[in-house]
Amino acid sequence: MPDPKTHYDELLTLVRKAELLGSCGAVLGWDRETYMPPGGNEHRANQLSLLAGVAHEWSTSPKIGELLDQLADSEFNDGAESDSVANIREIRRTYERSRKLPQRLVEELSRVTALAQQHWAEARQKNDFAAFAPWLSQIVKLKQEEAAAVGFAENGEPYDALLDEYEPGAESADVASVFDALRTELVPLLDAIKGAGRQPDTSLLNRHYPVDAQAVLGREAATAIGFDFNKGRLDVTTHPFCSGFGPGDCRLTTRYDPDFFSSAFFGTLHESGHGMYEQGLPGDAFGTPLGSSVSLGIHESQSRMWENLVGRGLSFWKHFFPRAQELFPDALGNTLLDQFHFAVNAVSPSFIRVEADEVTYNLHIMLRFDLERDLISGRLPPEEVPTAWNERFTNDFGITPETDANGCLQDVHWSAGLFGYFPTYALGNMYAAQFFEAAEDKIGDLQHQFAKGEFQPLLQWLRQHIHQHGRRLSASRLVEVVTGSTLSNTPLMNQLNNRFKTLYGI
Amino acid sequence: MPDPKTHYDELLTLVRKAELLGSCGAVLGWDRETYMPPGGNEHRANQLSLLAGVAHEWSTSPKIGELLDQLADSEFNDGAESDSVANIREIRRTYERSRKLPQRLVEELSRVTALAQQHWAEARQKNDFAAFAPWLSQIVKLKQEEAAAVGFAENGEPYDALLDEYEPGAESADVASVFDALRTELVPLLDAIKGAGRQPDTSLLNRHYPVDAQAVLGREAATAIGFDFNKGRLDVTTHPFCSGFGPGDCRLTTRYDPDFFSSAFFGTLHESGHGMYEQGLPGDAFGTPLGSSVSLGIHESQSRMWENLVGRGLSFWKHFFPRAQELFPDALGNTLLDQFHFAVNAVSPSFIRVEADEVTYNLHIMLRFDLERDLISGRLPPEEVPTAWNERFTNDFGITPETDANGCLQDVHWSAGLFGYFPTYALGNMYAAQFFEAAEDKIGDLQHQFAKGEFQPLLQWLRQHIHQHGRRLSASRLVEVVTGSTLSNTPLMNQLNNRFKTLYGI
Repeated sequence: MPDPKTHYDELLTLVRKAELLGSCGAVLGWDRETYMPPGGNEHRANQLSLLAGVAHEWSTSPKIGELLDQLADSEFNDGAESDSVANIREIRRTYERSRKLPQRLVEELSRVTALAQQHWAEARQKNDFAAFAPWLSQIVKLKQEEAAAVGFAENGEPYDALLDEYEPGAESADVASVFDALRTELVPLLDAIKGAGRQPDTSLLNRHYPVDAQAVLGREAATAIGFDFNKGRLDVTTHPFCSGFGPGDCRLTTRYDPDFFSSAFFGTLHESGHGMYEQGLPGDAFGTPLGSSVSLGIHESQSRMWENLVGRGLSFWKHFFPRAQELFPDALGNTLLDQFHFAVNAVSPSFIRVEADEVTYNLHIMLRFDLERDLISGRLPPEEVPTAWNERFTNDFGITPETDANGCLQDVHWSAGLFGYFPTYALGNMYAAQFFEAAEDKIGDLQHQFAKGEFQPLLQWLRQHIHQHGRRLSASRLVEVVTGSTLSNTPLMNQLNNRFKTLYGI
Repeated sequence: MPDPKTHYDELLTLVRKAELLGSCGAVLGWDRETYMPPGGNEHRANQLSLLAGVAHEWSTSPKIGELLDQLADSEFNDGAESDSVANIREIRRTYERSRKLPQRLVEELSRVTALAQQHWAEARQKNDFAAFAPWLSQIVKLKQEEAAAVGFAENGEPYDALLDEYEPGAESADVASVFDALRTELVPLLDAIKGAGRQPDTSLLNRHYPVDAQAVLGREAATAIGFDFNKGRLDVTTHPFCSGFGPGDCRLTTRYDPDFFSSAFFGTLHESGHGMYEQGLPGDAFGTPLGSSVSLGIHESQSRMWENLVGRGLSFWKHFFPRAQELFPDALGNTLLDQFHFAVNAVSPSFIRVEADEVTYNLHIMLRFDLERDLISGRLPPEEVPTAWNERFTNDFGITPETDANGCLQDVHWSAGLFGYFPTYALGNMYAAQFFEAAEDKIGDLQHQFAKGEFQPLLQWLRQHIHQHGRRLSASRLVEVVTGSTLSNTPLMNQLNNRFKTLYGI
C-alpha cells in the first residue's frame, strides 16, 4: 500500500502538471496582446479555450480529491504552517472551487473572453460602447453562472464568489465597509488639496518626451530597482500588465505617450513591482502553492509600493532626476527637481484609473467595485453601464467623461471576465503602505538609500519576508506576521497625509 | 449503433484537437526563438515537452485506431482522392508512425532539443563545437532510437525512417541517386561558370545597407508578392524560419546584416514563400490532412520559387530596383540594374548554405545528406563531424571553412533533431522549377507581369493548383497532376543553364 509520501508526491506532480499547462496558456495570452496579428484572433481563442479546458480538467481530476482525502490525517497535514500543510490547504481550496465549475463554462468563458478582449480594444479605440455591449452582456451572464456554481455564504451575495478567486476569504460587505472607512478619510484630504493655495505645474509632464528616451529611462529604472531582464522582458500593449510564465521568464508591458511622461514611467515601475514579486517566488516550487503568489491584493501591494511609495518619493527623484534631465533635455533641462517631484505627485480628479493620483485612485476603484457588484447582482443592466458610470463619476470626481473610451471602456478587466479583481487594487494600496512602514521600521533609513540609488535592501527585505514564502500564509495572516498588526487604513492614510500635506502646504 | 458519419466526425475531432494543441507548441517555439529571455529556457523546455507529450498521447490514442478500422470499409473510404479518403489515408499514416514512438522518447526528444537549440546558438556564436558536441551526441542517439522504433524496409537503412517524416514515401537510396544525377549536371555548369571570363562585381552587395531600410524593402517585397501581414508577422532570429500557427497567424523570421544585402532580402522572400503556402491552406480544414501541407519538399518548392525563380529574376528587379536605389542611395545610387542583377545571381563556392547561390546550394545539401546518413547509421561519430565536414567541403567546394561557425555549426537543424530534413531542400528546388515551368506554360508571360510588379496571377495559380488542396495528394502524385510528369531534374537544370549561361556568357 502506498505511503503518505507517495500520495503527497503524486499530488504535487498532478498539480504541477496542470499549472505547467496553464503557463503555456500564459505565453499565448501574452503573445495575443503583444505580437499576434489581427487575423490570428479566432484561432488563438480556440487554442486558449483548449488549454484552459484541459488545465481545468486536470486540476479537477477526482484523483486529486482522493489524494487530498488520503493525506488529510497523515503527518503531511500535521503541524502549523509547514510546507506540506500549506500546500494541502491551498490545493484543497483551489480544487474545491474548480470542481464546482462545469468544464463547459470554463471553456466558454475562455473562448468568449479571448474574443471579447479584441472587440473591447477596438471599441475603446473607436469609442463605441455599443459594439462592446453584447460582449459585456455575454460575459456578465457567464460570470453570474460562475458565481451561482461556486456559491457564497447565506448572508453574502453572488459577487463574493467572484471576489474570492482573487482575494481568498474576502467578502463584499467587509470590503465595502473597509472602503467606506477609507473614503471617509480620503474625501476631506482631497477637498483640502483642491482648496490649497499651492498647486503643481503639471503641464511640464505634457511636454514632448521622445518614446525612445522614455523606453531607456523606464528600463534603467526597472533594472535599478531590481527587475532582472535576463529573466524577463518589457513590451508594449494597449493595456499594461505583468505575466509570470514561470521560473526565469516574466513579461512586463507598458504603453508610451510621447506627450505625457507619467504613463509609461510609472506604469513600468508598477509592472516591475509585480515582476519582482514573480521573480522572487521560489522557482523550484513552481506549480505548487508554495511557488505561487498569495493573492492579487498582495501582488498589487508590491507593484504599488514600487510605483508610489518608492517611485513618487523625493528621494527616488534625487537619484533619477539628473538622468531624466539628460534624456529629456528639451522637456526637463530648465525644470527644478522640486517642481518635477510636485508634478508627479499632483492630485486632481481625472478620467483614467491607471494614471490617477494616489488620493483619487481608490475612488476609481470604489466606483468599479460598486458597479460590478450591481452588474453581477443584476441590478445594473450591462447596456446602462455608460450612464451609471458617468453619473457616479460626476458625483465622485466633479467631472464627466466626454467619451466612453475615457470612461467605462478604459479598462480591459471586464472584457477579460475579471469581475472581483478591481477591489484588490485598493486592498493592495493598503497592504503596500503597511508593509512599507514595517520595512522602514526594520531596515532603517530607506529614503537615504533611495537617494543614493540603493534599492536592494528594500527588495531583499521583501524577498525574505514576502516573496520567498509563496502562498504559505493567507493574505490576512501574512500582513499580521510581517507587520505585527491586521489590515489597517492607518499606514496608507499616514503616508498620504504626510506626503500631500507637505507638498500642498495644508 | 453509430453510423460511419459519426465515426468520421469523431475521428476528425480527435485529430483536430491534437493538432490544435500542437499549434500551441508552435507559439511557444516561435517565442523561444524571437522574444524569450535567456533565463526562460529551462521552463520553456518543460512546457514544450509537456505539450509534445500530450499531443503525442492524443494523436496516438487507441480510439483513433478503432475509428480508422471502423471507417476502413465504409463509404468514407471509397472513391479515389475524395476528401474523406485522403483524410483517412493520411491520418492512418501519421497514426501508425506515431504509435511506434514511445511517449518517453517523444518527451525526451522535445526536452533535449529545446535545450540543445539554445546551446547550439551559443556554440555557434562562440565558434565552440566542443560545447555543442555532447548535445549532438545525445540527439543522434535519440534519433537512432526513433529510427529503430519506426522501422524501415529490409533493403533500406535507418535514415529512411527519419526522412519519411518530412518527405513521406521517399527513401535514402532513391534520393541519393536523384542527387547523383543532379550532381553530374551541376558540376560541369559550376566549372564553366568558374572559368567564365565575365564575372559579377559582388562587392556591391557588401556595401552598407542600413537595417531599417532593409526591413522596409523586405516588408514591401513580401507584401507585393502576396504575404498577408494582417495574418502574419516578420521578426528577427538567429536562424530564419516560418511557423504557421493556424488559420490567420503565420510567423516569418529573418536576420539582418548591415553589410550584406542578400541575407535578409532573399531570406524574407524565401520565408514569405513558405508563409504564402501556409496562408493558402484551407483554414476550415485546420488540424486535418486537408488543411495541412503535403511535405517539406513541396513546402520548400514554394519558398525556393519565390526566392529564386521569381526573386532573382531580371523582371523582378526591373520592378524593385528603383525602390531599392531609393532606399539605399549610398550603396546603389550609381549601380546599374544589370550589375545588381548579375551580383545577386553570382555563383561562387561559399560557406553558408542559406546564402549560397542556386548552383552550389544543392551541393551543400548533398554534403549534409551524406553526413547525416553516416551519423544515423553510426558510421560517423558525432565528435568527428567538424573533420568530416571540412574534408568533404574542401573536396566539393575547393575551399575550407576557417571556423565551425561557418561550417558544421551553421544550421539549427541537428540541434532541433531535424535529421532527414535537409534533402527536402534540394527536392524542393526540383519541384519548384517543375511547377514554375508549368505555371509559365499555363498563365503565359509571367516575366512581363513581374516587371510590372504583378505577382497575383502566379500566386493565384499556386493557390488553385497546390495550396488549397492541403495534403489531398502525395508529393509525387501532386507533381504529376499539376505538371503532367513525374519528378525530374530537367526543369531545374534548364532554369539554371538558361539563366547562368546567359549571365556568365558561356
